[in-house]
Amino acid sequence: MTNGTLLIKNIRRIWQYDPDSTLGWQSGAQMKQMNHLENGWVLCQGDRIHQIGPMDSCPAGSHPELDAGGGDLLPSWVDSHTHLVFAKTREDEFRYRLEGMSYEEIANKGGGILNSAYRLRETEEEVLLEGARKRLQEVIRKGTGAIEIKSGYGLTLESELKMLRVIRRLREESPIPIRATLLAAHALPKEFKDNREGYIRLIINYILPRVADEGLADYIDTFCEKVFFQPAEMEQILEAGSRYGLKGKVHTNQFYSIGGIQTAIACGALSVDHMEVATDQDIADLLNSNVYPVLLPSAPFFLRDHYPPARQMIDAGLGVVLASDYNPGTSPSGNMPLVIALACTQLRMLPEEAVHAATINGACALEWEEDLGSIAPGKRANMMITQPIPSLAYLPYAFGSDWIEKRILNGKEFI
Amino acid sequence: MTNGTLLIKNIRRIWQYDPDSTLGWQSGAQMKQMNHLENGWVLCQGDRIHQIGPMDSCPAGSHPELDAGGGDLLPSWVDSHTHLVFAKTREDEFRYRLEGMSYEEIANKGGGILNSAYRLRETEEEVLLEGARKRLQEVIRKGTGAIEIKSGYGLTLESELKMLRVIRRLREESPIPIRATLLAAHALPKEFKDNREGYIRLIINYILPRVADEGLADYIDTFCEKVFFQPAEMEQILEAGSRYGLKGKVHTNQFYSIGGIQTAIACGALSVDHMEVATDQDIADLLNSNVYPVLLPSAPFFLRDHYPPARQMIDAGLGVVLASDYNPGTSPSGNMPLVIALACTQLRMLPEEAVHAATINGACALEWEEDLGSIAPGKRANMMITQPIPSLAYLPYAFGSDWIEKRILNGKEFI
Repeated sequence: MTNGTLLIKNIRRIWQYDPDSTLGWQSGAQMKQMNHLENGWVLCQGDRIHQIGPMDSCPAGSHPELDAGGGDLLPSWVDSHTHLVFAKTREDEFRYRLEGMSYEEIANKGGGILNSAYRLRETEEEVLLEGARKRLQEVIRKGTGAIEIKSGYGLTLESELKMLRVIRRLREESPIPIRATLLAAHALPKEFKDNREGYIRLIINYILPRVADEGLADYIDTFCEKVFFQPAEMEQILEAGSRYGLKGKVHTNQFYSIGGIQTAIACGALSVDHMEVATDQDIADLLNSNVYPVLLPSAPFFLRDHYPPARQMIDAGLGVVLASDYNPGTSPSGNMPLVIALACTQLRMLPEEAVHAATINGACALEWEEDLGSIAPGKRANMMITQPIPSLAYLPYAFGSDWIEKRILNGKEFI
Repeated sequence: MTNGTLLIKNIRRIWQYDPDSTLGWQSGAQMKQMNHLENGWVLCQGDRIHQIGPMDSCPAGSHPELDAGGGDLLPSWVDSHTHLVFAKTREDEFRYRLEGMSYEEIANKGGGILNSAYRLRETEEEVLLEGARKRLQEVIRKGTGAIEIKSGYGLTLESELKMLRVIRRLREESPIPIRATLLAAHALPKEFKDNREGYIRLIINYILPRVADEGLADYIDTFCEKVFFQPAEMEQILEAGSRYGLKGKVHTNQFYSIGGIQTAIACGALSVDHMEVATDQDIADLLNSNVYPVLLPSAPFFLRDHYPPARQMIDAGLGVVLASDYNPGTSPSGNMPLVIALACTQLRMLPEEAVHAATINGACALEWEEDLGSIAPGKRANMMITQPIPSLAYLPYAFGSDWIEKRILNGKEFI
């Protein structure tokens, strides 16, 4: 990855232009503006961005060239919340829901997280890898250049390890960097339905040490929600994680505000994800913290549920992250251009806010802001070239169009 | 187009399988079920579907072959409502709306139908054709195999003729069939803002006869809405159209129910399009009529407005049509797979209902049911092959995925 150059030229606009490599977390106030360079070129060296400049100073002749054809250049999406490894799609469940079945009836017919877990337990590692590989290729086509993937469909020591090993194998072969998150506390498995403490002890005393020992996870997650895990239970799990150096990235406030945000802040979590339901107090508390809110609009879109109050958060000064939540039950899509479109059309975010949220702020939510999320010398050369577009607003506006023309990964065109 | 054969084999499921070529309009009750053949082949001859059968009787060796690879086969979408010919995209207006500007402020800054009209008047026919051609190619990639296109950004004799001539030229070169609709009554141009009757006289006495004389339109449309044209005005226009053999396809009930449906029924219109607002009486009246309701969910999605009451209509027994409304102001997308996904996730239609609505019922809304909308011997061989999918429900479920693998147009693979 260290040799070879590539000169990308005839770029109409270079977005997230960051000549000093200093761009960091964008607050609500900062998200409205985005730095860009008009009519430029980018020189990649090895897997890195090496130099950036205006076309009138374009280096001539000495490098292999890629003509952007007057398209714009953006950093690749950093998708900081996915469940990309799973055994089977769940379109049957979607149909049952459309037919008016209750959650319980669907669970009885084979739906829900628990049933995803039982399916995964019976699926070979090789088969899981094959499915995840296809989905990863698909999201890379849609411009994703770095991603987080969670466990959480195992819910036993063996199966959580199996999922995380699949993620490790994906990481070894993937053209894009991957972070892994241990989400053993995704749901309470049936074996423990009358023994919540027993399952939490299993996570803390057996799964977590083993995962840490094998170096399989970067973060730890808990689904904090009325019917899943309570804030006090999440606290136990996050504290145990922190003893192994794993920061929290937690599911909270998807359906109810039950104190998950405050607990996550107290535990020093990196991010709180979902936030469809956020009270004024939740937003105020986040503003006074270093915890990043991650919004996942594909899930309420797919569920026809209410969207997170992004406008209220941003107007209060709070920066936000956008991610796909790619999973087979509630967001069967890793299409980040569509997430950008949902963010603007449904959450009323401005185009610049949405792109910040899915690039530099996404990178922050994975502690990758030094390496990704802007077009800066020294950063990994993961970028996308658009079709010629009139302005940044065209991207969410053209919500049904495939406007990504070319992808650059590790300094090379990815075909 | 009359010579050459193509054998499509290894098809997992042939949807809208119509062995006797008798499939017609699907009522609300009929839409829930869809006929299909498992594991089959389709033989095309010239531009037509010639024979259909199960794989165990697959003809061997004598025809050029296309392997569907275990994908499903569907008839192409029939998109019965678009404004595909326009001068410029309107992403700036989208941004102004996100920034909180009122409709009036946006109009003053260059937004709205009238401003689209002024731009189009200044645009050369050749330039309009070039833009429309690109958009047509784009929607064909998304599975559209027949389409309707309206005028309505001209609003003068000359410019309406210009638009309709662009549609005629598109039709001459297009691989898919096109119907043209005269929509001179799209908005009241500024020149006539104090002379509504004058504009309606211009349409009836000058534009319509000329359009009919040149054979430029198949249908006539009017935007019946509080701030555009009243039911009585629409009635005048539809009656004039009928004297030239042009049936009505009308915009009505997008924002208010002001009697447009009842007038359209009385005038013998072919379809009433939009229907975001439909009263119980509107639905009952449609049930007792031969007028087809056309739903356009991309528009309320893009505007974050309320969706048409599809569930109520279908449960009342009323069949519906789905179309894209592709236009630069309120639905800048002609992506029919996404329309199917919106229909299921947001309008709560079942997958079979959505596919019926976008194929055979779409064909009926363009009087093309003899030629399109099902996979039947004798019909035009416009179809799409999907990736291997577990069931029909996968299509709306995978709302962010590109699941169309191959397109067949006029009996040949379209690359």
